[in-house]
Amino acid sequence: METAVLKLHCPDRGGLVARVSGFVFEHGGNIIASHQHIEQLGDRLFMRVHFSLPELDAGRPKLEADFAEIARELEMVYEFTYSTTRKRMAIMVSKYDHCLHDLFFRHQYGELGADIPLVVSNHPDLREISERFDAEFQHIPVSKETKAESEIRTLSLFDDYDIDFVVLARYMQILTPRFLKAYPNRIINIHHGFLPAFKGARPYHQAYEKGVKIIGATSHYATEDLDMGPIIAQETVHVDHSHSAEDMLRLGRDVEKQVLARAVKAHIEDKIMVYNNRTIVFD
Amino acid sequence: METAVLKLHCPDRGGLVARVSGFVFEHGGNIIASHQHIEQLGDRLFMRVHFSLPELDAGRPKLEADFAEIARELEMVYEFTYSTTRKRMAIMVSKYDHCLHDLFFRHQYGELGADIPLVVSNHPDLREISERFDAEFQHIPVSKETKAESEIRTLSLFDDYDIDFVVLARYMQILTPRFLKAYPNRIINIHHGFLPAFKGARPYHQAYEKGVKIIGATSHYATEDLDMGPIIAQETVHVDHSHSAEDMLRLGRDVEKQVLARAVKAHIEDKIMVYNNRTIVFD
Amino acid sequence: METAVLKLHCPDRGGLVARVSGFVFEHGGNIIASHQHIEQLGDRLFMRVHFSLPELDAGRPKLEADFAEIARELEMVYEFTYSTTRKRMAIMVSKYDHCLHDLFFRHQYGELGADIPLVVSNHPDLREISERFDAEFQHIPVSKETKAESEIRTLSLFDDYDIDFVVLARYMQILTPRFLKAYPNRIINIHHGFLPAFKGARPYHQAYEKGVKIIGATSHYATEDLDMGPIIAQETVHVDHSHSAEDMLRLGRDVEKQVLARAVKAHIEDKIMVYNNRTIVFD
Amino acid sequence: METAVLKLHCPDRGGLVARVSGFVFEHGGNIIASHQHIEQLGDRLFMRVHFSLPELDAGRPKLEADFAEIARELEMVYEFTYSTTRKRMAIMVSKYDHCLHDLFFRHQYGELGADIPLVVSNHPDLREISERFDAEFQHIPVSKETKAESEIRTLSLFDDYDIDFVVLARYMQILTPRFLKAYPNRIINIHHGFLPAFKGARPYHQAYEKGVKIIGATSHYATEDLDMGPIIAQETVHVDHSHSAEDMLRLGRDVEKQVLARAVKAHIEDKIMVYNNRTIVFD
Repeated sequence: METAVLKLHCPDRGGLVARVSGFVFEHGGNIIASHQHIEQLGDRLFMRVHFSLPELDAGRPKLEADFAEIARELEMVYEFTYSTTRKRMAIMVSKYDHCLHDLFFRHQYGELGADIPLVVSNHPDLREISERFDAEFQHIPVSKETKAESEIRTLSLFDDYDIDFVVLARYMQILTPRFLKAYPNRIINIHHGFLPAFKGARPYHQAYEKGVKIIGATSHYATEDLDMGPIIAQETVHVDHSHSAEDMLRLGRDVEKQVLARAVKAHIEDKIMVYNNRTIVFD
Repeated sequence: METAVLKLHCPDRGGLVARVSGFVFEHGGNIIASHQHIEQLGDRLFMRVHFSLPELDAGRPKLEADFAEIARELEMVYEFTYSTTRKRMAIMVSKYDHCLHDLFFRHQYGELGADIPLVVSNHPDLREISERFDAEFQHIPVSKETKAESEIRTLSLFDDYDIDFVVLARYMQILTPRFLKAYPNRIINIHHGFLPAFKGARPYHQAYEKGVKIIGATSHYATEDLDMGPIIAQETVHVDHSHSAEDMLRLGRDVEKQVLARAVKAHIEDKIMVYNNRTIVFD
Repeated sequence: METAVLKLHCPDRGGLVARVSGFVFEHGGNIIASHQHIEQLGDRLFMRVHFSLPELDAGRPKLEADFAEIARELEMVYEFTYSTTRKRMAIMVSKYDHCLHDLFFRHQYGELGADIPLVVSNHPDLREISERFDAEFQHIPVSKETKAESEIRTLSLFDDYDIDFVVLARYMQILTPRFLKAYPNRIINIHHGFLPAFKGARPYHQAYEKGVKIIGATSHYATEDLDMGPIIAQETVHVDHSHSAEDMLRLGRDVEKQVLARAVKAHIEDKIMVYNNRTIVFD
Repeated sequence: METAVLKLHCPDRGGLVARVSGFVFEHGGNIIASHQHIEQLGDRLFMRVHFSLPELDAGRPKLEADFAEIARELEMVYEFTYSTTRKRMAIMVSKYDHCLHDLFFRHQYGELGADIPLVVSNHPDLREISERFDAEFQHIPVSKETKAESEIRTLSLFDDYDIDFVVLARYMQILTPRFLKAYPNRIINIHHGFLPAFKGARPYHQAYEKGVKIIGATSHYATEDLDMGPIIAQETVHVDHSHSAEDMLRLGRDVEKQVLARAVKAHIEDKIMVYNNRTIVFD
């Protein structure tokens, strides 16, 4: 069954849900799921409608043209996505392979409805695993001097491979604003700490020294403000005095994989909206 | 702001969401939240629409009359509830007070949008706490011989106090089918075990003997099939070999309180639908 | 059965566990539980021995005198506590009653092996509940001008009531270093945020604005460094975009109660040791 | 650092901990960790002592001979294991690869201190992954007629490969009592349900039909009593009405992997003792 997702937000006013669901119905669509959220601060409606359409590709132009008028009238920010257009995802890694492995594994199990045509890394180590899962592996080293050039090469690769969104699966380089702006709210990072605590380097060592009893991981969209982009998913795990920083690394791997996979899956299924540096994740 | 909730289920067909949200709009309502679920087995749509209506009480008769026609046409089972009609809840207890206490406490904090005019118990012990929270306390002893009569007295009290639904907050008596049928899907029980494991008596002792590493509690609508009614909420907690059955009782109290409160709150907010002995809980 | 707990820490060297358990045996004690931890940083042994002693009170002087020699030789910091000496706990509160209520409730259920003779508050509101649970309630208002004097009065009350340790059950005043030093590692605070994130005021509002997907609570020993004392227990709960700051307050109440109770219980049972601003909690 | 673990249980009596730790000390050992548990039912002491010994292999014969005398005197059931003797683990699988994958992955990360020389399967599918991680893969088909013979071949392979313990990583065959008795408390199974609920086949489908709000997985030692052996570890995950049985399968994979890995790690580190069909897991 071919389906579409319409995500939108706009100033709240009466009858919006009826208006949108009516629109879908008039165009022959049948609503599978519909979610709304009214943001307290700002009186703004967020809506996600998942619907099936018998002749999806044929109906798309008219659907979009007709909706553009409504959107203009109601000051909507909106986006249509279609099940007939499978998303293409690039993964950036360094040397840690647990998140990469986990994403490939879920991909193979059919948990993620996207393709993974490309892996880019600043180290050569993860070529074999990438190729085993039929992804092209590109080794693009990064140094202070070459960073700008490396990013340009990477973005150019993304173009070549028609990449829709990027997953930083423990990519240990800081990306420049220029790079980040090329994929706004489409670069998903995993931070191995419970943000907003433990920003920056070596969060598990920070956690150990603080003597916290819980550690965590955070998946968020990467923005210029390091480790401060809109949070998509978080998870925690209990620790105690007997856990060394190395034990936390081990426990952390399990949590990181899960949190990143949850965020990536939500992104692929068009369940995330971003507003004012917060996410609305319609589950 | 006065609001209404419409819950309905019916055979799935195209355009139902648009039809219902259009209906609400045409009657002057503005949708605050709308949830749908299509049950795989049986191709049935479940829907909950929460909407505000400027002159709720004035508009009710026409709203209901008009909807009755749609419902007939589309074979809907449905129910309207209104924020202007606060639900009235009776609590049945024996001697354990932790769930009773917790419900009163949440009531006092404004977490539960219902009134608690009545507590019925087969023991006299919990009179003081009930009266402290302004509930009438009725001691109705139960023995094998008097059970039928006790239940009749209890149902009669429920009538007198205009009771909408009943919470069995660790009420240690088995209720008869006749009693249960008087409040179908409106009697909420808390079972101190992770159903469907550990049905019946002394579940924590059963858990201890089995050497399980997790215990739990289950809140469900009471049906004739003891501890087998539709499950509303469940929660678990880890245990290990060092926990005695008494420790499990202690941990269990915390879990029971939470699970029961969650179920009661969902019921009060009209978030639960029952079909084929399963619940749909729209959160 | 009368029991004692010996907690100690010292530089690690061979044979310490054998030495301590041998000591207990030679004095007629039988070990019920024994825990050790070797702190990586600093090569320091932490040990807790829980043992029964047939004639505990009679044997105490010799036990302590003999152990003093061992401790001197092995540079031990140590403490004996006895089941025959029940701890006396003072609770300080302001207006929020959920943690106070919960502690009293657990006390009544026999979960906490301590007495609660005294409640001190800077507001008069919680007198009734305190007295209902047989605690003396003392209203000691605090203003900028009177803070020093209020603290002196409070400490004097603690003396009068033979208070062993203090629980800040959402006490909304900052205590001075002088006050804190009077009960080192014996003042337990509950912070309604997941430390070290969200220090200071209104953590749930901070959490809402950051758009975190998990909130938490932290129990710790109060030190001069506000919200930075050694952490005893932490717990988290999932939230999403649909939770307002008020919803987080509600969820937070449940988490705060649990985390505080867990810390208080561990303290009462002499399971906590503090070193370098971290806790070792022997469970 | 070379270390040993001594696990023992015996009727409780005074001074046992001192006796055992004194024994370790007299033989030159230094205790790293020591755990005790006194089982309420039966008054039986369980103890695990982890200690380092400077010349472990040289000292072993005397250590064991001397302890045998103590054990006889005190009616101890006991076992020594040594870090110098790395355990050898066989994995049995059918077609599902998620648990196998996860174990190999953790093995590669150094999380599991054991070798995995052998994988046995009744299907040929998982040869490639096994060989990639340097395990010998043996395809031993099983049918009703050949089961006895297949098991004999498998046991013979275990002998050839010096297998210490076996992990059933979603092995979809029922093993005969004869097979199970060859490795008592050394065959670890993962059941994809929260035992003792949902024994037997298709537990997620059972869970879906019951409408439970939590599903789980259970790792246990395999015994003749199917899915009823001593439980080692359990974990749960929340589900709701929107989860199909297929969704539960997906969520279940994550939980199964974790629970099995936790059990396998505890077994490898000699942290598990079994008595009366319950486990004591010293963490």
